[in-house]
Amino acid sequence: MRALVESTVAPMPCAIGVDVGRTKIAAGVVTGDGRVLAERVVAAPSHLDQLAVVSQVAAVVEELAGTHPEARRLGVGTPEVVEWPSGRVLDAGGSGQSFALRDLLEEAVSLPTVVDSDANMAAWAEFRAGSAVGTRNAVIVTVGTGVGGGIVTDGQLYRGSTGFAGELGHIVVQPEGVRCQCGNRGCLEALSSGTALTRNGRRAAQADPAGMIARLAGSAEQVTGETVFEAALQGDPQAVALFGELGHWLGIGMAAVVLFFDPDVVVVGGGLARTGDLLLGPAGTSMNAHCPVRGGRMPRLEAAAHPRSSGVLGAGMLALDSFAQAR
Amino acid sequence: MRALVESTVAPMPCAIGVDVGRTKIAAGVVTGDGRVLAERVVAAPSHLDQLAVVSQVAAVVEELAGTHPEARRLGVGTPEVVEWPSGRVLDAGGSGQSFALRDLLEEAVSLPTVVDSDANMAAWAEFRAGSAVGTRNAVIVTVGTGVGGGIVTDGQLYRGSTGFAGELGHIVVQPEGVRCQCGNRGCLEALSSGTALTRNGRRAAQADPAGMIARLAGSAEQVTGETVFEAALQGDPQAVALFGELGHWLGIGMAAVVLFFDPDVVVVGGGLARTGDLLLGPAGTSMNAHCPVRGGRMPRLEAAAHPRSSGVLGAGMLALDSFAQAR
Repeated sequence: MRALVESTVAPMPCAIGVDVGRTKIAAGVVTGDGRVLAERVVAAPSHLDQLAVVSQVAAVVEELAGTHPEARRLGVGTPEVVEWPSGRVLDAGGSGQSFALRDLLEEAVSLPTVVDSDANMAAWAEFRAGSAVGTRNAVIVTVGTGVGGGIVTDGQLYRGSTGFAGELGHIVVQPEGVRCQCGNRGCLEALSSGTALTRNGRRAAQADPAGMIARLAGSAEQVTGETVFEAALQGDPQAVALFGELGHWLGIGMAAVVLFFDPDVVVVGGGLARTGDLLLGPAGTSMNAHCPVRGGRMPRLEAAAHPRSSGVLGAGMLALDSFAQAR
Repeated sequence: MRALVESTVAPMPCAIGVDVGRTKIAAGVVTGDGRVLAERVVAAPSHLDQLAVVSQVAAVVEELAGTHPEARRLGVGTPEVVEWPSGRVLDAGGSGQSFALRDLLEEAVSLPTVVDSDANMAAWAEFRAGSAVGTRNAVIVTVGTGVGGGIVTDGQLYRGSTGFAGELGHIVVQPEGVRCQCGNRGCLEALSSGTALTRNGRRAAQADPAGMIARLAGSAEQVTGETVFEAALQGDPQAVALFGELGHWLGIGMAAVVLFFDPDVVVVGGGLARTGDLLLGPAGTSMNAHCPVRGGRMPRLEAAAHPRSSGVLGAGMLALDSFAQAR
């Protein structure tokens, strides 16, 4: 039905958006009004082999372009560090080498292509078609396995002087806290992420083998963040308290951002955003409590409108916004 | 001699810059090439009486304008929270009321007037005529009695959505740390400021009454930040270590800013900037150590070029830059 409508009126501009993850590649056709059509998910090759990533992305793009020939631009988000606007991946796969991801993709698929970090793509999705629409200054915090961030100001992504802006996951919020994989202690993502939830859930299950968390998982070793979420949904006070702990630290990190950047809105995305008020409730309380000098003038705190599809959506929207209409 | 030169060639555009402090008001004639002529310092009335502040500023401006009639714009920095561009002071003197400082000053002195926060004025001084000249994204951290911050991006002061941007002093860097006057614990300014240096110096003098810090001050109660500075200059290892402690925390706060904002340069100003490498050495080490994910891509860390006069200089420069040439 939609295809029929699109073929009989002037087609709406659309683009293919791709979100390259560590384990899977998601892609879809993104419309100018912020919808994702015809989504595809395939397994991702190792990020150590960026040429294989190019091939895999090209294959899924060709498939989508075959059924949606009106999608004539490509946007790709990646967890790697990306130089803008060249779309070069810096330190590709930890090799220390840079890699011309955008140029190689553009050559492979023959579409005008943009490449940016997945955090920037998520931020762009929320700014263009989500919880940050209409704002002047917005920060999007993605809370998943790790913690990332994207910044929009005056209608544009802010990437900083070297493209590293928004690296919220490694802000130190508890210097004597748990060790982070970066080597420091008490980084935000060591204390408030899916990884932290799993770790804290296992600790709770070990301490209370008869508790709901342990019972739902079967054993402490089998506890994941999902287990804690499930237990919290069933009202287990211990699981709810674990979300409270994550929210406490997330709030301290967001308060630092608010004090420095003074945005209109802080949007929380990433996998943990769908836990809703379990995380956002205590996070908002903590954020406000750590900004007393602002005298109550606080930004809105919102869950992402597109916690699952923001990578694909933002990549497609950024491609649409970066290239003048190609037809 | 300078007056003669200025009267015989086309006069350089200049402005009067005023820095309203809690205890004194500094003012000077600021030239377009970043010099301060004819500086005056007078006692400040209580900031609870903003009308008295207006009168005092007007008096010193009239004095300077009398000898420098070519200075036909006015810029005023204040420690209050200021709405831009209206120049209204919000919550004036803690009263909860706002106060039309710019309008009242403009009426009193009959010069086009801008009013902004002192931190923004200091940032503007460093961007226009100091350590941040030529940068695209710069953060100026002022470390004095408290800690403040100013942000410049794309050639403009970034004030945030409500004018509160840059409030670095209350970023929490040690949640279990010493109590801050804002009510929270472990704020940057509670751990790394002149106030912290005095407190830590007194503690050191109490613990070691025969040490250099105690001897220089006469007694632990008489120790100030100046005492610790003097002892450090004389090589006292205890005093040097106290600067190391301040620098450690300052570095954690600056690292949060670098991770989020990715500037070209971080400039440290305020009264403690003149202690130079005593503070900046350990601060830089700590900043770098808390950004391992940036793989060595760090902004420059610089002492302010104008730690003493940046308030006056920045206010004058901002007035010059805000108004088209009036002649």
